Amino acid sequence: MRGDYVTISDPIVLPGKATQPSKKGGKLASMKTDKYSKPALILAYVLSLASAAYGQAPALNDAVPVQLNLMPAPFSVETQTGRLAINSSFKVAVRGYADDRLRAGIARMLTRLAGRTVLTLPADLAADESAATLVVQCERPGEVIPSLDENESYNLEITDKQARLVAPTVVGGLRGLETFLQLLQGDRDGYYLAGIRIKDQPRFPWRGLLIDVGRHYEPMEVLKRNLDAMAAVKLNVLHWHLTEDQGFRVESKKFPKLHTLGSDGLFYTQDEVREIIAYARDRGIRVMPEFDIPGHSTSWLVSYPELGSAPGPYKIERGAGIFEPALDPTREQTYKFLDSFLGEMASLFPDAYMHIGGDENEGKQWDRNPQIQAFMKEKGIKDNHALQAYFNQRVLKILQKHHKKMIGWEEILHPDLPKDAVIHSWRGPASLAEAAKRGYNGILSAGYYIDLIFPASQHYLADPIPRDTTLTPEEAKHILGGEATMWGEWVSPETIDSRIWPRTAAIAERLWSPRNVTDISDMYRRLSVISRQLEELGLTHEKNYGMLLRRLAATENTIPLRTLASIIEPVKEYHRYQMRPQTMLSPLTGLVDAARPDSETARQFVSDVDAFLSDAPRFALNRPNLERTLAEWQNASRALGPMVDRSPALQEARPLVNNLSAIAEAGLEATSYLTAGSAATTQWRDTQLARLNEAAKPNAALEFVVITSVRKLVIAAAELPQLRSTTPVEWNNRVTTMASPPPPATKP
Amino acid sequence: MRGDYVTISDPIVLPGKATQPSKKGGKLASMKTDKYSKPALILAYVLSLASAAYGQAPALNDAVPVQLNLMPAPFSVETQTGRLAINSSFKVAVRGYADDRLRAGIARMLTRLAGRTVLTLPADLAADESAATLVVQCERPGEVIPSLDENESYNLEITDKQARLVAPTVVGGLRGLETFLQLLQGDRDGYYLAGIRIKDQPRFPWRGLLIDVGRHYEPMEVLKRNLDAMAAVKLNVLHWHLTEDQGFRVESKKFPKLHTLGSDGLFYTQDEVREIIAYARDRGIRVMPEFDIPGHSTSWLVSYPELGSAPGPYKIERGAGIFEPALDPTREQTYKFLDSFLGEMASLFPDAYMHIGGDENEGKQWDRNPQIQAFMKEKGIKDNHALQAYFNQRVLKILQKHHKKMIGWEEILHPDLPKDAVIHSWRGPASLAEAAKRGYNGILSAGYYIDLIFPASQHYLADPIPRDTTLTPEEAKHILGGEATMWGEWVSPETIDSRIWPRTAAIAERLWSPRNVTDISDMYRRLSVISRQLEELGLTHEKNYGMLLRRLAATENTIPLRTLASIIEPVKEYHRYQMRPQTMLSPLTGLVDAARPDSETARQFVSDVDAFLSDAPRFALNRPNLERTLAEWQNASRALGPMVDRSPALQEARPLVNNLSAIAEAGLEATSYLTAGSAATTQWRDTQLARLNEAAKPNAALEFVVITSVRKLVIAAAELPQLRSTTPVEWNNRVTTMASPPPPATKP
Repeated sequence: MRGDYVTISDPIVLPGKATQPSKKGGKLASMKTDKYSKPALILAYVLSLASAAYGQAPALNDAVPVQLNLMPAPFSVETQTGRLAINSSFKVAVRGYADDRLRAGIARMLTRLAGRTVLTLPADLAADESAATLVVQCERPGEVIPSLDENESYNLEITDKQARLVAPTVVGGLRGLETFLQLLQGDRDGYYLAGIRIKDQPRFPWRGLLIDVGRHYEPMEVLKRNLDAMAAVKLNVLHWHLTEDQGFRVESKKFPKLHTLGSDGLFYTQDEVREIIAYARDRGIRVMPEFDIPGHSTSWLVSYPELGSAPGPYKIERGAGIFEPALDPTREQTYKFLDSFLGEMASLFPDAYMHIGGDENEGKQWDRNPQIQAFMKEKGIKDNHALQAYFNQRVLKILQKHHKKMIGWEEILHPDLPKDAVIHSWRGPASLAEAAKRGYNGILSAGYYIDLIFPASQHYLADPIPRDTTLTPEEAKHILGGEATMWGEWVSPETIDSRIWPRTAAIAERLWSPRNVTDISDMYRRLSVISRQLEELGLTHEKNYGMLLRRLAATENTIPLRTLASIIEPVKEYHRYQMRPQTMLSPLTGLVDAARPDSETARQFVSDVDAFLSDAPRFALNRPNLERTLAEWQNASRALGPMVDRSPALQEARPLVNNLSAIAEAGLEATSYLTAGSAATTQWRDTQLARLNEAAKPNAALEFVVITSVRKLVIAAAELPQLRSTTPVEWNNRVTTMASPPPPATKP
Repeated sequence: MRGDYVTISDPIVLPGKATQPSKKGGKLASMKTDKYSKPALILAYVLSLASAAYGQAPALNDAVPVQLNLMPAPFSVETQTGRLAINSSFKVAVRGYADDRLRAGIARMLTRLAGRTVLTLPADLAADESAATLVVQCERPGEVIPSLDENESYNLEITDKQARLVAPTVVGGLRGLETFLQLLQGDRDGYYLAGIRIKDQPRFPWRGLLIDVGRHYEPMEVLKRNLDAMAAVKLNVLHWHLTEDQGFRVESKKFPKLHTLGSDGLFYTQDEVREIIAYARDRGIRVMPEFDIPGHSTSWLVSYPELGSAPGPYKIERGAGIFEPALDPTREQTYKFLDSFLGEMASLFPDAYMHIGGDENEGKQWDRNPQIQAFMKEKGIKDNHALQAYFNQRVLKILQKHHKKMIGWEEILHPDLPKDAVIHSWRGPASLAEAAKRGYNGILSAGYYIDLIFPASQHYLADPIPRDTTLTPEEAKHILGGEATMWGEWVSPETIDSRIWPRTAAIAERLWSPRNVTDISDMYRRLSVISRQLEELGLTHEKNYGMLLRRLAATENTIPLRTLASIIEPVKEYHRYQMRPQTMLSPLTGLVDAARPDSETARQFVSDVDAFLSDAPRFALNRPNLERTLAEWQNASRALGPMVDRSPALQEARPLVNNLSAIAEAGLEATSYLTAGSAATTQWRDTQLARLNEAAKPNAALEFVVITSVRKLVIAAAELPQLRSTTPVEWNNRVTTMASPPPPATKP
């Protein structure tokens, strides 16, 4: 046996970064600007084993080191020799405790294994353990209602003869089955799993994905396929944001006007809710509902204006932003209503927690309502924050009566807040730590706002308990985990998957894997593999890209449009709405909807340019790649003109087409200067930089993400003479410094 | 006003072709071998108007003639001047009769219009007709239960000022809304509809799509999106093939063991059936169920073996083919059961017709059962065909009792068959005509067997009443229409759309449009546009292609695999199963499942080669295209080697990769001889032809569809000297003759 055993636990961590919250219309998120920052420590984490490569290496050879494609990375991995062949005689045996949930999980694994290998696999379990390729051994069922107490750990060992998955609970077994599928490799001799020993368990017990179905309704199949994807990356909480100003999405049998008048007919029946809860439980996933109050409640007030803090009438909100309507916290009727409604929901949703939102209520209706003002005076409530605290206390009592624990956005934090409430932080780990010190449990979403269109690398480095935490180990236990938040302003059933995936897999790794697993380039390598595997589950993040581009191009040959779309990204934060206002009834079929966050092509280009410049003064490394790419941009910009002429839906993209041409030209000319070793004039440089600055401005709520690298090329071409009097490394640093920081591309 | 008015009716028709039925395992289909045969008459059908081009022309110019993208082509089209702008103030007004069905249809049209144009359109109907862009005017609701009596006609007029859709029924209105959407064009000035006057009505009242959910279950969303697609091309019958040897897919409350034991849990609840019926009705589509008896009934006998003609026990069939189990037609218990079950189904399905299958019962169980033999002797029933006729008569009485008309596959035709039974022909128009002469109504499916993987062109020319029909006009009225048949042996929810679409749109045109609309190249031009529009409805025929290839390639760069897949097609007829046996439990994720019928790339190559050779002796026309394509094949074959090494699922494709290399090399060398004007030796030619013959053999149930054209190039290269002594046209004919017929590529 060769291979070494590495246990990854706490001591090795990355340098943290101070985060600056910035408020943008809706929610905030901490933002880190070093998009491609490298971790200080390249870990000796055992994701490189010795054997044949799967899916990445250019050729096969036993001497080529293999790279495992596990995501999230397990707690510990020990490599072993051996190769377990996967062929059509593959069989699973179950030992110890087994139930329908485990058998269904095994059946799903078999379907995916068969789909990926194109092997007809036996549908039945092996009667005899010795005849099985995989033995699954669980001790007990796990929690009846998925909860924070769930034991999700498992051990998985692969030898020449058999794979053995051992877990205390069925949920741990399900987690291990996902790892098993990720271990599948192939070469000339067929499919196999390489010898390995994995011990795995999550770092945090709360690993969630919020899906906002209030702003845009998402059909059942969207939720189901996203639950499948969550299970694939070991997330365990669906935070179902069910009510918003723009829609009330759950059937209430006690107050049917809520969903009939508040949803445009787009709501989940209680049967459907139960179907989702069962589907999630089958995958070891909790379903926590959110009923956002007292703000974000316009859709409630459409049918019950008497609960509002202003007389109404109210209409379903169609815009994006923060709106004034809020429940009236001073009237007993409000609490009577909430007691009845939340009681109904408490019976419907078995999860121990109920999220009451509590965010972004600016209290404008309260300020203008004389009764509310009188109430505050009478009770000695000094401001709106205190009034909301009063409201929260009342709601907390209602939830306690219905045996639910309260969780809310961090606005609910207030000296009077009881200690069993959970704080959901959108401001950052610092405020979460503050709450923890005061004894509150909390989860982090700051840094995981996937609707802000930041790259996975940025979310990946946001840690609920950063390296520089001042929390004691005891206090740190209050940090339960985190949640990625898919706010729903600009997602449709066609586009939501591409906003959630694959980036959320990187967040899932942050919440499951040891803190020191932070190698960004290895994360991206694995993310690309996992992204393809997610397609097996019906996810559309990849395939709808081509579809949306075909629709826009109104022609079959979308190659030029794909070329453009591959190096632009939707503007970050909440600038999209400012630059390109739409309503909740607008189609989400524009180029900004087709374009995706975190361009892989751009990442490749950035790395190609860096390698090319590092090869000074030869400038041969990656030159053909670079020239081909730049020429492709130039060709695309030429072909796009006539395409835009024919497709009015693309006309907003015309400036992007012109800028693509300028970018390509600047890059090609610079490359030509560099490879010829003839310096560009400063006049040429300044002209090009001016054009690049222009091109860096967003258009159609889209921005190029390759500008800095092209700036580098342009500056380098003019800096050629300096190369004679310095080392290439120093010269490169100089060029890099001159080329950055880029112009503020996201500002409209 | 410019433009001419052309009414297309019966007299202009195409030369027919004798069809040869050939039995292949399951169903039969008439086959025509002239894949790219041209119609004898190029019709003066007004699909070419004067104005700007949409989606096809390389540049825009008012002088370029526009080509309309209507499919199915309307009964008559009159062009007008004028341009109706489509912008964000687009509004629809309703005049005359309106109901929820019409309003829902308008809402769906608006959603698609918005999605395609990226315009935020007003959701409400215009109160004032004069403010509306489109006025929809219906007289009455149409049939309560969609039926053969439905009036589906409509008139649509577009002027500068307004679009006006007038129809006697809401269903005609729905048909017109689809035409309206197909008329959308775009140019630099935005979206618009060109002035036009359309009068439209179907040629046949029965235009169906059979979906076999027995062999493979298809989830609700698959049925729904296919109903949407059917509506888009004006099909009006979903023939729901609900029971098969391999699965009993409908809930029976009277006999619940039927679906619980016979379906692997994959069946439609009665609520779901009602949901599909309502969904279809909303789109003016009938839902006709099929319960295939007495054969094809293994799944029934799993729970009721006592109804079988052999003792059992029975298991759900997993194979493909014709199986022996058949109901026992001699026992009263069988009819009692059918009376009860079909009675239940008659209440569930409101359609006037019920399909009882009746096909492919070979009677082997009957032959071996002494009681059945004794019964036949006693009753004077002389053979199995007569016994089945007896059975059919009994079933007919049961259906009559439950107020249903019987329809069955043409095996049910028998002297004793009552005249109100409908004959469903899979043998061809001749047998249908024969039935019509005997006074039976009938529909055609021979020629529309889309599971046989033939090109759309072939289905397109199959006519229920061919030009050479001997039917009198009175007799011809018995021909009600036809149905495309999606038999389910080798389709999964991931692949079924690509087997149905876009080819079924060509069949829809055959059944709706005048008989003389038969220009194949114009059909393909429009089919390509319609295919993209079908994606708006969630259809996956295009987007799952890339997904399946990504999964197989196990890498992101699927370009070489796409290149290969673009010129191979699954083997035709029922050879797939012979060449590559699988069961109903096998994954349908192989290269044969990714590859699609009717390769557009191959069609383009065939036409490029023909143009190139027609340019003898210059050989300049299309030369760059041809060389680029052939070089791409060569590059792909090189890149595919390592890809296949890494992906065992692709290893069955290794011979295809080698053959791709041979094809590319032969083509490139031949092109090089031709353009250099230097003749190839006969030895070279024979070597190449031998390699091409080898390459023409199917592998992995896939075959190249460009071989004949490469043969042409090779032969032409060797025939160069003959060019001096003959005209280029004669020379070309000679080369073409020598190159064809191709070797029998589909024979294993």
